[in-house]
Amino acid sequence: MAGIKDVAKLAGVGVGTVSRAINDTGYVSQEAKAKIDAAMEELHYIPNELARNLYRKKSGIIAVLVPTISHPFFAEFINYMELECHERGYKTMICSTEREKNYESEYLQMLRQHIVEGIITGVHSLDVQEYLEIDMPIVALDRFIGDNIPVVSVDHRQGGMRAARELIRCGCHKVAVFQEAKKVHSPAQARYEEFMRVLEESGIETISCELEWNKSDVAYFNQVTSEFFRKHPDVDGMFGTDLLALSYMKAAQENGKKIPEDLKIIAYDGTDIMDAVYPRMTMIRQPIEKLAKEAVRLIVHRIDGTNLLDKHIELESTFIKGNTTDN
Amino acid sequence: MAGIKDVAKLAGVGVGTVSRAINDTGYVSQEAKAKIDAAMEELHYIPNELARNLYRKKSGIIAVLVPTISHPFFAEFINYMELECHERGYKTMICSTEREKNYESEYLQMLRQHIVEGIITGVHSLDVQEYLEIDMPIVALDRFIGDNIPVVSVDHRQGGMRAARELIRCGCHKVAVFQEAKKVHSPAQARYEEFMRVLEESGIETISCELEWNKSDVAYFNQVTSEFFRKHPDVDGMFGTDLLALSYMKAAQENGKKIPEDLKIIAYDGTDIMDAVYPRMTMIRQPIEKLAKEAVRLIVHRIDGTNLLDKHIELESTFIKGNTTDN
Repeated sequence: MAGIKDVAKLAGVGVGTVSRAINDTGYVSQEAKAKIDAAMEELHYIPNELARNLYRKKSGIIAVLVPTISHPFFAEFINYMELECHERGYKTMICSTEREKNYESEYLQMLRQHIVEGIITGVHSLDVQEYLEIDMPIVALDRFIGDNIPVVSVDHRQGGMRAARELIRCGCHKVAVFQEAKKVHSPAQARYEEFMRVLEESGIETISCELEWNKSDVAYFNQVTSEFFRKHPDVDGMFGTDLLALSYMKAAQENGKKIPEDLKIIAYDGTDIMDAVYPRMTMIRQPIEKLAKEAVRLIVHRIDGTNLLDKHIELESTFIKGNTTDN
Repeated sequence: MAGIKDVAKLAGVGVGTVSRAINDTGYVSQEAKAKIDAAMEELHYIPNELARNLYRKKSGIIAVLVPTISHPFFAEFINYMELECHERGYKTMICSTEREKNYESEYLQMLRQHIVEGIITGVHSLDVQEYLEIDMPIVALDRFIGDNIPVVSVDHRQGGMRAARELIRCGCHKVAVFQEAKKVHSPAQARYEEFMRVLEESGIETISCELEWNKSDVAYFNQVTSEFFRKHPDVDGMFGTDLLALSYMKAAQENGKKIPEDLKIIAYDGTDIMDAVYPRMTMIRQPIEKLAKEAVRLIVHRIDGTNLLDKHIELESTFIKGNTTDN
């Protein structure tokens, strides 16, 4: 493959001139530019854009860190995020952290090395200290990490309240709620707190099941829901994220329960796959496309240094009445 | 931030020596190395690894191109692929091509520029010519592109045959099959051909519905299946990929059909989410983790130039008897 020296030779100019022309780092006469362009074309010379960008500390890459890519919420988020990054001239690098803890450190290191220009993270397993030491573009999805790291999330409190009210309206007496590991400091906790508060205020019994940290595969969910169902067969209302709600509905149906007559179910997230499920699920739908767009907007602003004011973008979720609460 | 010059100054050696030490491009004495290491540590100097790698035409990045990341099959594939890439010291860049055609060209260009070292592609919308002109590491997932581009897939013919035999065993008379756009030259076509052949050989009527190219969202599937169901309410067997099978089952149940009494359904792919669904789906499960590992193995071999012999890796799928064919 032709190199910069070959281009310089054919164009009859110095290597420095070619470098200035390609990298736009200094004056090059129109005449020299024309010769260089012609030589590049003749030699099929392709300047290494990434190397050029790295020289300017711009790789054009944004990394996204999630527990697992195959979880429908994260898969949808990444899908929209990648499209938005592309719109704005960035490439997307992905990393799932469920299996190994040190991935997160590795990516912070890549940020320091300018291999990636920014990180959008839906995980947070490290000491907050590690994040606070690094003053570079990071945006958190549904996680509180530190004061300098802006957060994008939905208003979980609103969703929790809406779900509780629906189960109260349907006359539930004993409600199960599945929540993520409490040690994760996330805006999502407000959803459970509000859900429990509203139900308890109405004198409704609640049973809370805390999930293990960083586990979100269906096999685990099936194990949790069928064990829970054996212990608490008399539960008549349930609230959990999409796959958990599906898994719980499955456990109930396998045990001859009728939905919604014997058990009301509300799913949280409302990813697209839920639209393929029968009976139609009553859901609190997160605006995943908007979350992704906002996360990318924030990270790009931080990379450009144009807007550092937004600290917490909180979007509205949507209540969708299906047939799993009543007909 | 400290630069290479600061390191050289503190270590009391020349910049060239530091560069040789960092990039491992020439002799540096043990004594000088020790001084450089100490200076790098003292100054918190982080060499730009990617820039260094690009100099050697190694970016350490593998790109994966899929129609859409949020489709469960691709989400799972990417999840496993990213883990395997990480194991082998590579980062994963993603690109979904469903919305814009020219993404594919863009990534081929990045391959030429050494911004990515290899591409695993589950899409193919360009002229084969564009691929044939580029003699660089490319591996195809479930696509035939050209003789130089190895393919990783399951033995679709076997899966098609297995599904057909199950529907024959269950006594179906009129079977619907949903297949991807025929203009895509994919090993998956063998699945439909074999499925149809086996059924027709047994005198069973088949109705085939060809899906639009590059459309795989649930809203589209729901539209297709409910229209199909209205036209052909008397179909008693159905075969399609996971979300289509779910969507079809939903359309049938909404119309009061009982599964499996009135209608037998077999899903193809068998992604994890199907394990959360009731009734338990009869499925042909693709070994997605193995497909991802094989695709990464092939691309890494091609990057290293260590093994260029494998042309088509064909893995076995697994038949899983659920309750959507009989109880």
